[in-house]
Amino acid sequence: MKLATLDIGTRDGELVVVKRDLSAWTTAKDLAPTLQNALDRWSEVEPALRARAEALESGRAPATAYNAKKLLAPLPRAYEWIDGSAYLNHVILVRKARKAEPPATLLTDPLIYQGGSGDMLAATAPISLRDEAWGCDFESEIACILGDVPQGTTAAQAGPFVKLLCLVNDVSLRNLIPEELAKGFGFVQSKPATAFSPVAVTPDELGAAWKDGRVHLTLSTWLNGERVGHCDAGPEMHFSFFDLIAHLAKTRRFTAGTILGSGTVSNQDRSRGVSCLAERRMIETIDTGAPKTPFLKFGDRVEIELFDAAGKTVFGRIDQTVTRSDQK
Amino acid sequence: MKLATLDIGTRDGELVVVKRDLSAWTTAKDLAPTLQNALDRWSEVEPALRARAEALESGRAPATAYNAKKLLAPLPRAYEWIDGSAYLNHVILVRKARKAEPPATLLTDPLIYQGGSGDMLAATAPISLRDEAWGCDFESEIACILGDVPQGTTAAQAGPFVKLLCLVNDVSLRNLIPEELAKGFGFVQSKPATAFSPVAVTPDELGAAWKDGRVHLTLSTWLNGERVGHCDAGPEMHFSFFDLIAHLAKTRRFTAGTILGSGTVSNQDRSRGVSCLAERRMIETIDTGAPKTPFLKFGDRVEIELFDAAGKTVFGRIDQTVTRSDQK
Repeated sequence: MKLATLDIGTRDGELVVVKRDLSAWTTAKDLAPTLQNALDRWSEVEPALRARAEALESGRAPATAYNAKKLLAPLPRAYEWIDGSAYLNHVILVRKARKAEPPATLLTDPLIYQGGSGDMLAATAPISLRDEAWGCDFESEIACILGDVPQGTTAAQAGPFVKLLCLVNDVSLRNLIPEELAKGFGFVQSKPATAFSPVAVTPDELGAAWKDGRVHLTLSTWLNGERVGHCDAGPEMHFSFFDLIAHLAKTRRFTAGTILGSGTVSNQDRSRGVSCLAERRMIETIDTGAPKTPFLKFGDRVEIELFDAAGKTVFGRIDQTVTRSDQK
Repeated sequence: MKLATLDIGTRDGELVVVKRDLSAWTTAKDLAPTLQNALDRWSEVEPALRARAEALESGRAPATAYNAKKLLAPLPRAYEWIDGSAYLNHVILVRKARKAEPPATLLTDPLIYQGGSGDMLAATAPISLRDEAWGCDFESEIACILGDVPQGTTAAQAGPFVKLLCLVNDVSLRNLIPEELAKGFGFVQSKPATAFSPVAVTPDELGAAWKDGRVHLTLSTWLNGERVGHCDAGPEMHFSFFDLIAHLAKTRRFTAGTILGSGTVSNQDRSRGVSCLAERRMIETIDTGAPKTPFLKFGDRVEIELFDAAGKTVFGRIDQTVTRSDQK
């Protein structure tokens, strides 16, 4: 089942069920007015949503042509956004780039941060930036949207709590990160609003590609039309989503609608390219002594999409342009 | 105007207006079903809420006797919870306790972290703890609840965005903090669910005590009935709420209902006592070479309350007992 949030001028939009091939959607507002509402009472509403999806696939539900520009983020505001950094190749490269060491517990203790979740951007929303000098970067990731997770949930118990999967552009302001992290309290200014794929899907939509809490498919990223990365999101995800859930749930419970990110998808094989510019700049530095690729400038366009084994889009495309914020 | 959220068995509860002396409340669900809904359309709904509060004060609205146990947190789940550390005496003592240096920018760059906001505890909810060895501590704070804050808001512009004030118990797991912060990504496991005062109030309820983005009143904390702190929340708040808002808004906007904390209220004058056990333990270490006060144990009770100049409670009392979580 594929779900999205229609922009109707309200803060939370309106729930629609999307056709598997992303050609059309049909309303689900009679079943649950918003995606958050559906997540709040998932076990009650899921069967009816799946029946609606079936009706749409078979032509028995009224269909409106798909248009990503009419969609908000699946959850336009969420109660939590927590982002792991589960691809160790990314951790190692990015820390090298800012002359920091990876933590000693790299292999055993997941890196994870609490992000801001009040302003989740639509797939086609601009990246509103006040200052190019902040070093704006994209980070292409996969995320899951959780149900109610009790305190103490283990990795072995975590599977059923993954209700939906989606893509994320975890925008980062690289030049603000070193000073902010030096203070020791994590990211605040250096992580502006995060953007999401137009569509969120239940894990079964991925078939065998959803395995052991990982998405075994290739995540592609384009910068100004050039494909800069086509990274395998599967085996190099050192900590699975299930591991990350267990890490989070050690000391507290989580409410339905919590979004948990994988961290930047990253492969050791350089021919795969990158899912963020910081990695590319670090590779350039290793090879030539200095970074060559600049961070994002006003007008730059970032696209992120994931295709299944048959080459079909799963979540639709994140397609954002960096725009100068008029709020100085 | 004083507002609270009645527990009606739903996730978000139901909005009530509370009498100034906290003796009674009356429903406001016909004006806005929940506090989040009221914040979403504050300018539209505020006049009607104030009229309802007037009716309650003058006996023209049906009144139900106040009972904190029937209330949830003002926002039982919030879209963001961001906590400053604006009392420098706290920063210096707590860093000393974990043998860390205060950041070099202590006086100019606010320490602030993004917290989890999906599970906000009622004032009388237990502190559900799985392991006493984690070093559970309370932190008595003041917080404001914001309206929609645009990116680039300055401290001078910040005043009108403070819609409500409340109290917070920012529970911390001290023995998990050093390893977690060493990883560089801030708090995740070491900050379990935060608790809130029963009542949130508009800043005008504080009269002259709300000045320059600070609450110039005394915040009291009791541990097992013993008053351990009566700290002045005013002058030693080095960064005001307005400063903290400007810091946050540098790179992104914030949605209505964002909760912003002051950090643990702390005074240099030792006769004021403490608003967390970590400070008390550090003072004991300085004086005697070792901490004497243990962290919280199962069954310990923490109470937090703020009185106005006339000795009346402003927000009601946070009153929590540490309970052993049965979720292992």
